Amino acid sequence: VTDPTLHDVGEFAVVSRIQQRLGDVGAIVGPGDDAAVVSAADARVVVTTDMLVEGRHFRLDWSTPYDVGRKAAAQNLADIAAMGARSTALVVALGAPRDWPVSAVEALTDGLRDEAEVAGAVVVGGDLSGADAVVVAVTALGELDGRAPVLRSGARAGEIVVLAGVLGRAAAGLALLEADERTGPLVTALVDAHRRPHPPYAMGPALALAGATAMIDVSDGLLADLSHIAVASGVAIELDEDWPSEGDLGATRGAAQLLGVAALEWMATGGDDHALVATLPPGTPIPPGARRIGVVTRAPRGGVTAPGTAMSVAAGTGWEHFA
Amino acid sequence: VTDPTLHDVGEFAVVSRIQQRLGDVGAIVGPGDDAAVVSAADARVVVTTDMLVEGRHFRLDWSTPYDVGRKAAAQNLADIAAMGARSTALVVALGAPRDWPVSAVEALTDGLRDEAEVAGAVVVGGDLSGADAVVVAVTALGELDGRAPVLRSGARAGEIVVLAGVLGRAAAGLALLEADERTGPLVTALVDAHRRPHPPYAMGPALALAGATAMIDVSDGLLADLSHIAVASGVAIELDEDWPSEGDLGATRGAAQLLGVAALEWMATGGDDHALVATLPPGTPIPPGARRIGVVTRAPRGGVTAPGTAMSVAAGTGWEHFA
Repeated sequence: VTDPTLHDVGEFAVVSRIQQRLGDVGAIVGPGDDAAVVSAADARVVVTTDMLVEGRHFRLDWSTPYDVGRKAAAQNLADIAAMGARSTALVVALGAPRDWPVSAVEALTDGLRDEAEVAGAVVVGGDLSGADAVVVAVTALGELDGRAPVLRSGARAGEIVVLAGVLGRAAAGLALLEADERTGPLVTALVDAHRRPHPPYAMGPALALAGATAMIDVSDGLLADLSHIAVASGVAIELDEDWPSEGDLGATRGAAQLLGVAALEWMATGGDDHALVATLPPGTPIPPGARRIGVVTRAPRGGVTAPGTAMSVAAGTGWEHFA
Repeated sequence: VTDPTLHDVGEFAVVSRIQQRLGDVGAIVGPGDDAAVVSAADARVVVTTDMLVEGRHFRLDWSTPYDVGRKAAAQNLADIAAMGARSTALVVALGAPRDWPVSAVEALTDGLRDEAEVAGAVVVGGDLSGADAVVVAVTALGELDGRAPVLRSGARAGEIVVLAGVLGRAAAGLALLEADERTGPLVTALVDAHRRPHPPYAMGPALALAGATAMIDVSDGLLADLSHIAVASGVAIELDEDWPSEGDLGATRGAAQLLGVAALEWMATGGDDHALVATLPPGTPIPPGARRIGVVTRAPRGGVTAPGTAMSVAAGTGWEHFA
């Protein structure tokens, strides 16, 4: 059995294979030239970039290259949604060792393409380079369709805080992998949530249309990301006593018992599910797919409190990459 | 003397310092939210991405972090120019070891910002991540200002081939560094050309306005990149006998003598100067800043020949990242 490497096949031939897998993406100019050209119908483009590094953001013994492609795309597509926008296109810079199989690059490409499709976007270009570890840097572009972008800074005291998407499942899955617990349907579902998050992309524009005054995707953890909104808006946020959803608690409680930890902590501090949290003026009908989890208050500015638990955040803290 | 590391200062504080160095960039939404929002006045956006990896594309004992920032930006801004577009914005994903000095990240940011400014663009966002080696993935956005993009595929037999920018200087500089030759003004100028290329950004739109039918930036080497045009357009390209400029030959000849190699080879195969090559219909006035270097012919398709030298290219070959 032969599984040719990047070195065996060579850069130009690998790039050609990647382009074949992407197919006709329907962009104004797609992959294969110096740059791509993408529609930006309302004369503005939303843009974000995020890098995933092997050994830091993923392990290739825990995630397949296909999973890594899905996750790298999801993380960026969620950032576009958090502006109230819909994603249109991705470009991807991939660094990989010369002895990496071409089939792995193809699988990673498939993952990027498939996750982009979930959000209604296409992969329009990229760059392939040598590197000692696998590094995937994705840039996502999006359209606001004439709406104003929803920033972190628009929350006002008296508004409500709403959540779309799941919390704590990816963190539970990662904890299970770290503890070498991999058996049973419960474990599989949570580990899959770590490998391939499912951000609620369509809820970004839906919450914007509903009147969201501030929005963020949960990438550092619910409390930390709410704190980003609180700091940027000069407000405080107080979670309702019943903010944890029964669904998320139910999914993670078994794993928490197995590992002897608190499921609630995964939900409050786990980041990789890429849920969306937004603030809405009081009395605004909450769109289907979102639910209320708290209120915006005046003080202490930048703080986030979760009554009934010992957890709180003083100001913009969360996952630190260099800790 | 203290030079605090990324670990000492922490991700959020470093990001805050980076944002301060970028200043008010004048975008619709600049750095600091989930995504940036950039103007795309003619309802299209040009987008390209390229990754630079420490030890592959640069060495930190040969280039400063500021140089790396300039070069990472230049490489992407040149791709935008090669579409006939002007750059508007960059986003940057940076991976760096936790013991890297914060001052190095700040210098790299300054380099990105300063090179973007040369092309009329601004840095609107980014991502900072841990990594074992320094990795810089830049994505550039650009505007076509109502024009059609200039692809690689539009060259037709009978047209002329024109060049804007310099050739072979960055390759000569790299060869000097590899040979540990670092003394004298000649060496300094060539080594600087390797560290900080100066692509002729404004010539991209100028050549498009002049009627360019195909264009590419020289990143794999003149012969290889002309071959990309030849293959995409289904034509051949024949260089004029006097295609090498006296300026480039003069600058590199001393270095070539020092190292016992042929200056012409650097000009034909060196890629890092990011010159622009384009094809123009016969009789088209060549815009100032460009000069004729060859003609488009019928056969052999995809081939590039340089009469008077032994050099030729059969089809889309050049720098291979996994060779």
